[in-house]
Formats: sequence, C-alpha cells, structure tokens
Amino acid sequence: MVDSPDNAVCAGFDAWAKGLLGRCEGLLDAWVPADAPAGLGAAMRYAVLDGGKRLRPMLVWAACEAVQGQQAAADRAAVAVELIHAYSLVHDDLPCMDNDVLRRGKPTVHVAFGEAQAMLAGDAMQALAFEVLTPDAGIEPALQAQLCRLLARASGHAGMAGGQAIDLAAVGQPLDEQALKNMHRRKTGLLLQGSVLMGAACGHPTPQETQALSTYGDALGLAFQVVDDILDVTQDSATLGKTAGKDQEANKPTYVSVLGLGPSRRYAARLRDEALAALDGAPALKSQRLRDLAFKVVSRDN
Amino acid sequence: MVDSPDNAVCAGFDAWAKGLLGRCEGLLDAWVPADAPAGLGAAMRYAVLDGGKRLRPMLVWAACEAVQGQQAAADRAAVAVELIHAYSLVHDDLPCMDNDVLRRGKPTVHVAFGEAQAMLAGDAMQALAFEVLTPDAGIEPALQAQLCRLLARASGHAGMAGGQAIDLAAVGQPLDEQALKNMHRRKTGLLLQGSVLMGAACGHPTPQETQALSTYGDALGLAFQVVDDILDVTQDSATLGKTAGKDQEANKPTYVSVLGLGPSRRYAARLRDEALAALDGAPALKSQRLRDLAFKVVSRDN
Repeated sequence: MVDSPDNAVCAGFDAWAKGLLGRCEGLLDAWVPADAPAGLGAAMRYAVLDGGKRLRPMLVWAACEAVQGQQAAADRAAVAVELIHAYSLVHDDLPCMDNDVLRRGKPTVHVAFGEAQAMLAGDAMQALAFEVLTPDAGIEPALQAQLCRLLARASGHAGMAGGQAIDLAAVGQPLDEQALKNMHRRKTGLLLQGSVLMGAACGHPTPQETQALSTYGDALGLAFQVVDDILDVTQDSATLGKTAGKDQEANKPTYVSVLGLGPSRRYAARLRDEALAALDGAPALKSQRLRDLAFKVVSRDN
Repeated sequence: MVDSPDNAVCAGFDAWAKGLLGRCEGLLDAWVPADAPAGLGAAMRYAVLDGGKRLRPMLVWAACEAVQGQQAAADRAAVAVELIHAYSLVHDDLPCMDNDVLRRGKPTVHVAFGEAQAMLAGDAMQALAFEVLTPDAGIEPALQAQLCRLLARASGHAGMAGGQAIDLAAVGQPLDEQALKNMHRRKTGLLLQGSVLMGAACGHPTPQETQALSTYGDALGLAFQVVDDILDVTQDSATLGKTAGKDQEANKPTYVSVLGLGPSRRYAARLRDEALAALDGAPALKSQRLRDLAFKVVSRDN
C-alpha cells in the first residue's frame, strides 16, 4: 500500500503472528467472563472476541521478546491493552459518538445488545483491564503497579480519552498538521506506544533501551494513524471490516485531507523508518518482531 | 429517619466529617485536570467537584484510621473511589440509561456538556482513578497494586457494572428479596465495602480484622441501599438533590416495593447493628468513625 516490500518482513513472522492471534483469542476467552450478570458477559465477549488485528497485543509481546521479559506478565498486559482498545471502539460506535453500525465485519455492540448494555460493557471492559493486570499472585506487585500506571496514563484524559474529546470538537474544524498530530498522538498513538512500554516493562531494559522503544512506539503510533486515514479513502467497507469513507463524510480532518494522499504515503514510510532507526540505536534488543510490525503497520490494507 | 438517635454518633464526628469534606474537595481539585483537552477537563470537574456526600472517601479514611494506616495512600484511595462513583453516576444519568436531568442539585453532565462529552468524561474518570492510585513515588508499589486490584474488582463486571446490568434487566420484572439483594450488593454494596477494604489496606490489619471490616462493609453497603430505596419514596427532589420517586416511576423493584416501608426501616436498622457487631469482634481497631458512619448512613435524609 505504502512503499514497503513484503520481503522486508522477516521469515517466520507470519507463523509468529498467527500463533499470537490464537494465544490472544485463548486468553481473552479465558478471562472475559461469560457469566457476568444479565447479558453483560455476552456483550463484553461479543465486543472483544473473534476479531481485530490484535496489533496492540502483538506490540506487547514483541516488546517483551525484545527485552526477554516475563511471558506471564506480557500475556496479561496484552489482554489488558486489547480490552481498553475494544472498550473504546464500543463507546466510539455509540449513536452519541460516531453512530456506527459495522465493526470488524459485524453489527456494532449497541446494534446487537442495545445502547445501555453497550455502554456498560465498555465500562466493565475498562475495569477488567485493570483487574487482569492485578492478579493475586504470579506477577510481582511492583510490575503490576507499573503496568496499571502505563495503561491508565495512555488511556485517560491525557491519552486516548483526551484525543477522542479533541476529535469530537474537531468535526468540521480546520486543523493544521500540528493539531492533527496532537489529536492522533493522544487518540491512538499513546496506547500503541503504551503497548510497547508495557511489553518492555515485563523485562529489565536499560534507560537507553526504554527510550529507544518509546521513540519506536511514538513513530509507529503516528504511522498507524496516517495509514488509517489513507485506508479510509482508498479501501471499501468490506476490506476494512468497518464503514469506509466515514471521516470524509463526517467532515473530519485527516492526514489525507490536510497533506494529500501522496504526501501522506511518504509520511507513513518516513515514520516507519524513524521507528526502525530508533531500534538501530539499541542493538542489544532482540527487536526483529518489532521491526516486522513496523513494516506490517505501514503496508497493511485493513 | 430510621430508628437511630443522633446522640449515638460520637462527639467530634461532625467536625471530622467537615474536615474530610474539605480535604476531599481539595484533593479532587488538585488531581482532576482542568487542562484536559477540548473541554474534557471541565466536564470531569463538573461531574465530581462541589457536591456529593463523599461517603466512599469517608469510609476509606475511617477504615485507614481504624488500622492506623498511611494517610498519603488513603488520600489516593479516597479520590479513586469517588472518581469511580462519580463516573458511574455520569453514565447512569445518560439518556440510554436512566435519562436523568438532575444530580446533586445541578443539571446532569450530559445536559450541561452533551452526551458524547459526558460519556468520554466518565471513561476518563475511570482511567484517572487508576492513575491516581499509581503515582511514580510516595506509595509502595505493592500497596498500589493491591488498591488497583480492590477497586477493579469492586467496580467491574462482578461488582458495580454487573449490578447495573442486572438493574437494567430488572425494570418491570418481579424480583424476590434474594435477587434484589444480589443486584444491590453488586451495584452499590461492593464499592462501599471496597472503600472500607482499600482504607484497611493502607495499614496492616490482621486477617481477623480484615474479615471484621469486610463484614462491616458488606452490611453497611446493603443498609445504604435499603435507605436509598426508603428515601426515594419519602423525600422530595429538593432534599435528595436528585429526582425523587424515579424508581417507582420506572417500575423498578426496590426494598420498599418488595418488603414494604416499615419492614425496610427495621431491616436497615438491623443491618446497621450487624455492621457494628462485626466491629465489636475486632476490639483493637480504632473504629469510632466507622461506627459513626454506620449510624449516619442509616439516619441520613438525603
């Protein structure tokens, strides 16, 4: 899609990714309770099981692998970020927000379960993310606290929720590139970067390595959003699994509307290269999967 | 209101409570960010500042006092539980839920800021609760993790959010006393009990003391809801600061509708006595303020 030859992705990536897709599904199946009362569990599971690219969990696992961290902690971090991401989609799709009816190729949660249940399911998924991060045993308490800290900051008022508030206020407003970048860094970027940092927290990176991973996550997060904006105008709803063209229709500023399509593609490729360059600066990291993910994020078609 | 003479409350309680009301307001003012983007901070502050009985923070502080725990940790726990409580009210008031326009004597958040901003403010308040519990320094990480664990469990699918799902499904349904108790234990009780347990976690209670505080919190939480149901039919909106009579109007089952008014009053008094008896079993606790709060919860008129 953007300039990014498939042979740049390392052999073995597809098998690695496929394995983690299955791992993610299995963990979510085990930890998102079917028996939550009065249909709440069914709505939560509908919202998060069986779908999604699982990019955030993969970033957690790839970063954990890079620092040779604890798998058990990374599993919980991976599920927690995916729960936060999925809850944000459920709330974002509600009639009072984007009023969307299609997500991951299925009717959105409020279409299937009603608005009130969708709101509660989102609320409960946010709480579950923090519950998953704080088991009675198996992960040292200091790491539990660190993972909660990273997730809360990435998803709250200064991060994802704040970015959504800017997005809400930006409809029909002219935003310059700087304002657009600020919105997307918060709305999407900080949780993607947070996924990398949570994975890294499962091991013992040096401060320089943490900084390299942070820079990687920042560039990758922005690249992801630039590509999202490109796909919104170049792909159809069936390929995306969600309603295509909706930013344009809602008169929302996007990278494509601000920079144009060609420059947006070049910008995405440049951000990918920035992410890769950051990893070059920390050669002791086992960063092959993070590199692969940087290529995949920019070359994806949905 | 219920049989509970005012002289049962210890001298000094009112000054203690007044001091903590001010403390709560000051901490919320400091920690709920005015500068969150695009009006989000204003909506969050509107939702949580300047109002409310602050019962949950008082339970945190009283339980911390009972175990002579760390004040700095109790301050964060108090603010976190109040943020969770306040977010739940914001979401509960939305048109897709209770569709209420009056709360704490003011227009509800969605009336003042719009539905989308109200939903985002609630989401951001939940994240902020966990952010407040996980500062970079000042509270040992193991305690941070424990506070996050208690809060997530009390507010999520098995607690508050689950109770709200039952509540949603119960409109117009006949519930027996056991089903009503299950709903209220989750919807309100577990967060009140959680407040007590979070306060207790700030010190080093014995297992027997933790059990006594847990039993106290459980009985108090249920008493609170029984009294809420009584007030809904006996008080007017001006006294309550929220719309009176709405359970009846919405055809929701309540203790008054299931047990009757007189038996509900006697039940509330019995639950208060159970809460007090639990404290009697742990005489080393400095439990005077918890005792006072048990009387206050049952004798309140709003």
